[in-house]
Amino acid sequence: MNETTTDTEEVVDPAALAARLADEMPADIAEALNGEIPQFAAAVLQNLPLDTAIAALDTPGLRDPGEIIEAIPRDRVVPMLSGMSADRVADVFLELDEPVRSDLLARLDTETKASVRQLLIYPEESVGSLMTTEFVSVPANWTVAQTLQHVRMVERTRETVYAIYILDPRSKVLLRALPLRRLISADPEDSVLTAAPKRRPVTLSPLASRDEAARVISKYDLLAVPVVDGTGQLVGIVTVDDVIDAIVERQTEEVQRFGGVEALDEPYMDIGFAKMIRKRAGWLCALFVSEMLTTSAMQGFQGELEKAIVLTLFIPLIMSSGGNSGSQATSLLIRALALRELRLIDWWRVALRELPTGIMLGSILGVIGIARITFWQVFGLYDYGPHWILVAITVGAALVGIVTFGSMVGSMLPFLLRAVGFDPAAASAPFVATLVDVTGLVIYFGVAALILRGTLL
Amino acid sequence: MNETTTDTEEVVDPAALAARLADEMPADIAEALNGEIPQFAAAVLQNLPLDTAIAALDTPGLRDPGEIIEAIPRDRVVPMLSGMSADRVADVFLELDEPVRSDLLARLDTETKASVRQLLIYPEESVGSLMTTEFVSVPANWTVAQTLQHVRMVERTRETVYAIYILDPRSKVLLRALPLRRLISADPEDSVLTAAPKRRPVTLSPLASRDEAARVISKYDLLAVPVVDGTGQLVGIVTVDDVIDAIVERQTEEVQRFGGVEALDEPYMDIGFAKMIRKRAGWLCALFVSEMLTTSAMQGFQGELEKAIVLTLFIPLIMSSGGNSGSQATSLLIRALALRELRLIDWWRVALRELPTGIMLGSILGVIGIARITFWQVFGLYDYGPHWILVAITVGAALVGIVTFGSMVGSMLPFLLRAVGFDPAAASAPFVATLVDVTGLVIYFGVAALILRGTLL
Repeated sequence: MNETTTDTEEVVDPAALAARLADEMPADIAEALNGEIPQFAAAVLQNLPLDTAIAALDTPGLRDPGEIIEAIPRDRVVPMLSGMSADRVADVFLELDEPVRSDLLARLDTETKASVRQLLIYPEESVGSLMTTEFVSVPANWTVAQTLQHVRMVERTRETVYAIYILDPRSKVLLRALPLRRLISADPEDSVLTAAPKRRPVTLSPLASRDEAARVISKYDLLAVPVVDGTGQLVGIVTVDDVIDAIVERQTEEVQRFGGVEALDEPYMDIGFAKMIRKRAGWLCALFVSEMLTTSAMQGFQGELEKAIVLTLFIPLIMSSGGNSGSQATSLLIRALALRELRLIDWWRVALRELPTGIMLGSILGVIGIARITFWQVFGLYDYGPHWILVAITVGAALVGIVTFGSMVGSMLPFLLRAVGFDPAAASAPFVATLVDVTGLVIYFGVAALILRGTLL
Repeated sequence: MNETTTDTEEVVDPAALAARLADEMPADIAEALNGEIPQFAAAVLQNLPLDTAIAALDTPGLRDPGEIIEAIPRDRVVPMLSGMSADRVADVFLELDEPVRSDLLARLDTETKASVRQLLIYPEESVGSLMTTEFVSVPANWTVAQTLQHVRMVERTRETVYAIYILDPRSKVLLRALPLRRLISADPEDSVLTAAPKRRPVTLSPLASRDEAARVISKYDLLAVPVVDGTGQLVGIVTVDDVIDAIVERQTEEVQRFGGVEALDEPYMDIGFAKMIRKRAGWLCALFVSEMLTTSAMQGFQGELEKAIVLTLFIPLIMSSGGNSGSQATSLLIRALALRELRLIDWWRVALRELPTGIMLGSILGVIGIARITFWQVFGLYDYGPHWILVAITVGAALVGIVTFGSMVGSMLPFLLRAVGFDPAAASAPFVATLVDVTGLVIYFGVAALILRGTLL
């Protein structure tokens, strides 16, 4: 690894920092600028060679590009925007406020303006918002030599030239995708259509989800996927580097949401205190209010509690086991659904697996629980009363019931969420635990009523 | 999307299925074979054209490749293995049992054998085990035209030709990486060294982690990263498609482990019952045994419990809030550490953020809790006794303490795990909840002792 860590603390002059960064990789320049305020970053960019500044602005890792762009004088920033990839410009425009946004859009050259306008109409999580319009396409009646010449000419202005898209000369419908590696090995006199693989390329709709783009790229090991509209015309391509960023973003979202937080969308240390509270308080309050049902349930069992206070000793132990088994099942099913290993209609197959799994896991915990109570009682560490054997059996039986219930709820919840149109990944560990807790109490006291009736209760 | 779903249920004859699959994409062939037993899949592959069979075997999505390979006669399988990419062959060999493994290895051609042997020596989660040895490299004294001619010749046998690696003619040390797009646009008479970018390429060590490969590929938007040994010699490359698979695998692992399960490493429905129990029971039992401390804690507070049974009503509510806030903080920090937004030495900055965040979140829940008790009491829904105001204050104050404690433990645990050499992602939601539960009880009864001393206690 030969990345350069730039200790920006010492440098106070933008020109000096620019001189030091000029030969770095764009991602490293972006990283160095992330440590500065946008106005300073803007000054550094203006001191870099235009190509280098464009490459740095094009890096998705550069934070607050909107604020940086705003801080650069209009006549200096327009050439930068024209040089950037259209999809990145569209992303940046989403961050700009009016009137800067309209003003800058008006100053762009016609081609860039049209591309950016087109990209801005697609919804945020769609393939359309992820794609770029800077692809290489040639009509099907061109030769290999003509195409290669064209690729050489446009290479500098295209995000990727490693896939060449062959269009019907009249209808502009996408016919084939030709990898550059095959183009350079083909006979120059051949038609491009002859050189291309015979099968129709895998395509995406601009309204498909980013997850779908990630799945297709990863399944077929592609460097880019063409995006076609309803008439079969090529409107853009999604490249593998954008997909990787989307996958990593999605991964962060998935873990955060599973932890019971609204996805942050920015780095942990960058987010303001008020925003951090908002992102966390929502779910925390919702879970707290739902969990209040446990208080109501316990109030309902107050008679039992007063008669058999020994039962309260195991409440945290039993409830947490239900939550834990539920959290396990949910995490497994969220991923199985995300990876399309399972579909909605498979819910019953999963239920049939989780039922015996839950019973087995509950029995293991039940045996440990009974052993614990017996050990403490027999060795005089604690006195669970004359009916301690029945108490132990109550705890063991309740564990079987609660762990089984937890596994069932935890595994079915992601299916239920998908069935009603939500993302299965919204099923967080705290959410499942809360769902299981109330029923867990009811199961515990129900089992206790059965086993201890006539003795403790 | 024009993926083909192959309804394999109707087909019983391998030759017929092979005929139907022959024109499909390799990933779709793999998907169709995944629905069959290995012996049948092996028969289908033998009925496919050799190139197609090789492409299907090369697809990482094909399951149980080891069993399929074993089911193909040796003389038929050796040409397939020779045609496959060396890194995939090495992965498959890891799944083969002896003596088949040694027998097959011996039958491979010298070049493939050497590559596979080399790849097999690297540890499982290392860059070395992810890389392929099939790259394009040329000596620095070649011309652009020579290099282009070489690329055309070797194109079919290389995993990627989109980056050409330029080596010192004598020492074989890696000097530059030249993207194919620049090669084809360069002057044919120039030396490759002139055509290449001036900076040294970003490289990886074969012993670096897969996560590191993913981070570098995603940061620098590369299609491949060269892997060099201690002397600077090129030993392999990691390609973007392998990295995507590694990222997705890692994502699944991360969610599963955060859910408190050992990572499954296979699809949910494929895993056997006994293995599923093993993967889940380990953590579940460990958490259960730790959670037993809550029982011991409650036994210690039995005096208080008997005097003020009203306190037990809020135990599940208060404990779950601590676990939830901890789970939130852990999920945020796991990702911040994985994305390298934060480093180990930043722990105190995080602690200084989590402290006020926890107090604020705890106060919000505390107010809701006090409101709930007051409402129930005032409207006669439940009678919390003459000291209900003190009980409500106890619950509110305990919530502030427990939520703050949960946020602190949840945020520090990933740092602690990294500090002692573990993966921060081992900090699961159930793990954090369990850690917080025992202390949560102590805080609750401690606060109660302070506030209720002389009245209820």
